[in-house]
Amino acid sequence: MIDLKFQFDGTDKKIEEKEYDVIILGAGPAGITAGIYTGRALLKTLIVEEKMIGGEAASTDRIENYPGFPEGISGLELMDNMKKQAEKFKTQFLMSTVHNVAVSEEKKTVIADQGEFSARTLIVATGSSPKSLGIPGEQKFKGRGISYCATCDAPFFKDKDIAVIGAGNSGIQESLFLLEYVRSIKIIEFLPHMTAEKILQERIKQKNNVTFYLNSKLRSINGSQTVESVTIEKRETGEKTELPVDGVFVWVGLKPNTELFKGMLNLDDYGFILTDEFLKTNIDGIFAAGDVRKKILRQVATSVGDGALSAYSALQYIESLHSES
Amino acid sequence: MIDLKFQFDGTDKKIEEKEYDVIILGAGPAGITAGIYTGRALLKTLIVEEKMIGGEAASTDRIENYPGFPEGISGLELMDNMKKQAEKFKTQFLMSTVHNVAVSEEKKTVIADQGEFSARTLIVATGSSPKSLGIPGEQKFKGRGISYCATCDAPFFKDKDIAVIGAGNSGIQESLFLLEYVRSIKIIEFLPHMTAEKILQERIKQKNNVTFYLNSKLRSINGSQTVESVTIEKRETGEKTELPVDGVFVWVGLKPNTELFKGMLNLDDYGFILTDEFLKTNIDGIFAAGDVRKKILRQVATSVGDGALSAYSALQYIESLHSES
Repeated sequence: MIDLKFQFDGTDKKIEEKEYDVIILGAGPAGITAGIYTGRALLKTLIVEEKMIGGEAASTDRIENYPGFPEGISGLELMDNMKKQAEKFKTQFLMSTVHNVAVSEEKKTVIADQGEFSARTLIVATGSSPKSLGIPGEQKFKGRGISYCATCDAPFFKDKDIAVIGAGNSGIQESLFLLEYVRSIKIIEFLPHMTAEKILQERIKQKNNVTFYLNSKLRSINGSQTVESVTIEKRETGEKTELPVDGVFVWVGLKPNTELFKGMLNLDDYGFILTDEFLKTNIDGIFAAGDVRKKILRQVATSVGDGALSAYSALQYIESLHSES
Repeated sequence: MIDLKFQFDGTDKKIEEKEYDVIILGAGPAGITAGIYTGRALLKTLIVEEKMIGGEAASTDRIENYPGFPEGISGLELMDNMKKQAEKFKTQFLMSTVHNVAVSEEKKTVIADQGEFSARTLIVATGSSPKSLGIPGEQKFKGRGISYCATCDAPFFKDKDIAVIGAGNSGIQESLFLLEYVRSIKIIEFLPHMTAEKILQERIKQKNNVTFYLNSKLRSINGSQTVESVTIEKRETGEKTELPVDGVFVWVGLKPNTELFKGMLNLDDYGFILTDEFLKTNIDGIFAAGDVRKKILRQVATSVGDGALSAYSALQYIESLHSES
């Protein structure tokens, strides 16, 4: 069980400088790794994060497949390690909402709550966020019984009965974590089978307080003040059932955080950023790394690879500017 | 300073089984990461290594840019961590020379010193090795004053004067380590400048027992029983100079370990394996990961990304076989 009181420090420092060699948007594994590399290459680097240092990885209870930690490591601890490592190389962190990115020939400018910051290169590592369901009750009960983060909210559901939506990797992995708190879980999955890795499927099947509702569509989340039940529909028969639960955890996929870049960067049909093998986007001096770009596998291990490569490409780009001038 | 007595264990166990889901050739960061992922996916996995568990990474004194270790970590310790992590998921390790790889429609067979081992998929992660110089004296003094591994051999040169060949990342990083042992270093570089990262250049320039011989070609390594001197030639003038040294450490680039695959896998002009974005080679069911494949950046961080992706692709391949049959 991880310590939920564990906190990052040092992100509330006042950032005075406005000009950088590299600005990295997003402080997940890809962004921080890029910052380790650019900092170590003596490039003046700022990482801007809107929500949480460490990104989605930081809200993962336990990461057991990031190489180097035989016993696994909590997402929060791993990401705090990475942050400290980047800071050792003088990379700075700023918590701030970003409103816009302006591109001119000489520089990229990030317009944020805390002011405007410019750099010669920009690495977009804004990651992706859990998708919403778009069903009745979801908006009403957000924060009052609906959650997208087990690590954040599990303690609120101690000895309660909950529903988990989605039986992919995230849904099953987080259910295993939630079982340390809750009394029972009803897992609701649209497909006729779980899609999680086999090792996770085997583990969850050994639990006796988990019930599966496969091939079932979630229709609504119901209650007066807080969540009291969910209504599901059997896809084969159309039969509806109301299941009493005290809370709902949702893992039905990811959407890329690319709102800022629509009409600027080339995106695929789902909104992920298209890059070449150097992780260049369609704009000179802008690179993309990690879950935000179109790629085959989204893991901490692949994100750190992206982070290192994007930093290398950013360095090459800056050196090419020097040799031209 | 790392503990040179530190040893890996558990690799001398007798391997009885002959049939696997996945065989991985090479136990560096890419190969072991692949083994963590395939093991965790409940695929029966064997990793075969010819030389040293951990690969070239294991002979790196200190790795400070692999994300997750703010103070850096010795290559040996990092790779031992990875090995333990793979073994936790029941991946097996075998130390053995591999003589051949035979491919049929159903399986890939690895013919090794310790017998023949078959699998449905093969991940080639054999990495790359330091290049030789190909100059007079090199063969004669190998193991008697010439080394390609600072971590392995530094203690033999305590308080001695040595030459380091090559001022790239490896040459400068390993020189910094060697300075903990040796009395002085003469760094000989073919190009007119160092190519190491700036942070390494800055560090080495602060040392007062290091002399640079840039734009210089190493012509021979001389001595009777052991190394006594090196002869260099100024590239601009052709002027030759004999420099007295007790040892020579060589870092002049890498060559891929792909001897086994010539005529079987598509290679580039330098011998690196060509892959697609899934890390597939030209043969169905054979994947390549890490330094052995043609890629832009060779780092532990990018190798673990490759390892994870190659395992994912191997898993997809095996599942496609199941759904066909």
